[in-house]
Amino acid sequence: MLYVVGHKNPDTDSICSAIVLAHFLDAYPARQGNLNPETEFVLRKFGVMEPELITSAEGKEIVLVDHSEKSQSLDDLEKGKLVGVIDHHKIGTTTSEPILYYAKPVGSTATVIAELYFKNAMDLIGGKNKELTPDLAGLLLSAIISDTVLFKSPTTTDLDKEMAKKLAEIANIEDIDAFGMEILKAKSVVGKMKPEEIITMDYKDFEFNGKKVGIGQVEVIDVSEVEDKKEEIYKLLEEKLKNEGYDLILFLITDIMKEGSEALVVGNKEVFEKAFNVKVEGNSVFLEGVMSRKKQVVPPLEKAYNE
Amino acid sequence: MLYVVGHKNPDTDSICSAIVLAHFLDAYPARQGNLNPETEFVLRKFGVMEPELITSAEGKEIVLVDHSEKSQSLDDLEKGKLVGVIDHHKIGTTTSEPILYYAKPVGSTATVIAELYFKNAMDLIGGKNKELTPDLAGLLLSAIISDTVLFKSPTTTDLDKEMAKKLAEIANIEDIDAFGMEILKAKSVVGKMKPEEIITMDYKDFEFNGKKVGIGQVEVIDVSEVEDKKEEIYKLLEEKLKNEGYDLILFLITDIMKEGSEALVVGNKEVFEKAFNVKVEGNSVFLEGVMSRKKQVVPPLEKAYNE
Repeated sequence: MLYVVGHKNPDTDSICSAIVLAHFLDAYPARQGNLNPETEFVLRKFGVMEPELITSAEGKEIVLVDHSEKSQSLDDLEKGKLVGVIDHHKIGTTTSEPILYYAKPVGSTATVIAELYFKNAMDLIGGKNKELTPDLAGLLLSAIISDTVLFKSPTTTDLDKEMAKKLAEIANIEDIDAFGMEILKAKSVVGKMKPEEIITMDYKDFEFNGKKVGIGQVEVIDVSEVEDKKEEIYKLLEEKLKNEGYDLILFLITDIMKEGSEALVVGNKEVFEKAFNVKVEGNSVFLEGVMSRKKQVVPPLEKAYNE
Repeated sequence: MLYVVGHKNPDTDSICSAIVLAHFLDAYPARQGNLNPETEFVLRKFGVMEPELITSAEGKEIVLVDHSEKSQSLDDLEKGKLVGVIDHHKIGTTTSEPILYYAKPVGSTATVIAELYFKNAMDLIGGKNKELTPDLAGLLLSAIISDTVLFKSPTTTDLDKEMAKKLAEIANIEDIDAFGMEILKAKSVVGKMKPEEIITMDYKDFEFNGKKVGIGQVEVIDVSEVEDKKEEIYKLLEEKLKNEGYDLILFLITDIMKEGSEALVVGNKEVFEKAFNVKVEGNSVFLEGVMSRKKQVVPPLEKAYNE
């Protein structure tokens, strides 16, 4: 029983990459949590079923997509058999045995999968060189758009744009930009969400030098959507910090149009200020140009913890 | 300046994979130490120059082949820029930024590189789809033979055999078995070597649960070659253990014909006995069927340390 599964608090890349890779590996796609509104919109748009919810690796062979960190993975991963990782993040784990590991520094895991498909090279990772149907091409395209914030994120590479174009042809999507704005708007439904839902929508745990750090992110087209909820979000983060043993929690409100993020900082402000060379006045600070947790937030923070 | 470099105490796979991958990446091949007699034989046979010796990563972009563990890599790796890893071992490191990482559980790194070549997929890892000349094909073939002990090691996969056949055609080698015995004999020159040379020929450091562990290996066709040197090897290992802060040193004398290894055990014998469920009488014990450090020695040992 081979399962393909993305990270906790799944985003569109984790869900869509799991579905499409499972197709090529003759495996079961799975998810570790509820779909966010953007992903729901994407699956409905292309008429694809949501993957099975799994909470245990026991008795399963597992391929991880879109993550490798233990803290973002199934809690009992060691009870299953990890056979592979397909990812676009930093290398987040070591293993005790050789496995398949394929990661590239590109904008999304969907990009990595699309490239293998177009290179006819699915067999390199143990898959079959089958057809990519229009609905599955649409999922990969959506995942690229979501993870690169319609190619605006600094994580975006030429390969992401090239794959998006080729996928759009198969998916019969003529105007990538218009389609992309639809997706980003679906993501930007925070106006209707409760503060506790906003926090968990895209939230990841890390361990830096033995300290527990949480980093959440929400991307908005219009900052006013969250303006009146910030105070309550901050209170909830303070409670979370206390109750769950965090050293630091960051919550990034990323303004897609302004191309930067307001960071709410709870806990160890010193290490945050050192990492970003800023001064936090009150509860938050605006980080100009910062849109990517993976590329612009995690590396300086990890470095600051290790100094 | 992009360099491709294998592990410390380089073996034939580390040297040949670095040379061939550097060809496809338009990079410089490098090595971290002296060639062993087998690798010297292989390079002479195919008329290929030895790679440049490097001891520092400073100012260099680095692609690692055939390893990822920090303990086997350049001491100041963090002073350079690690851009990629191509390997066939367990995932041995985490990173703080996304990089290219491609590892497969097959018999050699050369197998991974050969497959990318025959799939015309060198561009997946940032290389060019150039020609593989007969001399370079000969190097990859030699590396596969060396790492799989002529396909006898339990790490051997069908892909190793398939790649070896295809490489032999390009390299104009008609009888792989006869050629393989030539290589293994060149490896088996321990009869002429000093004990201190035998120890360092293929020696790797590991860290298990915070403890420093060294595992050396020598492969012989005829055990009598080392019989009269075992006592002195043991004494040298005891000194090494004391002087360099090891918790345990294993030295495997692998008998290619008997398909097993005599393990000299210095230091923490309890953890060794637990790992292999054996009793060490005197200084050593014969491990039936054990030929692969990577697949049969490291995993149970790491497990025993973590229990």
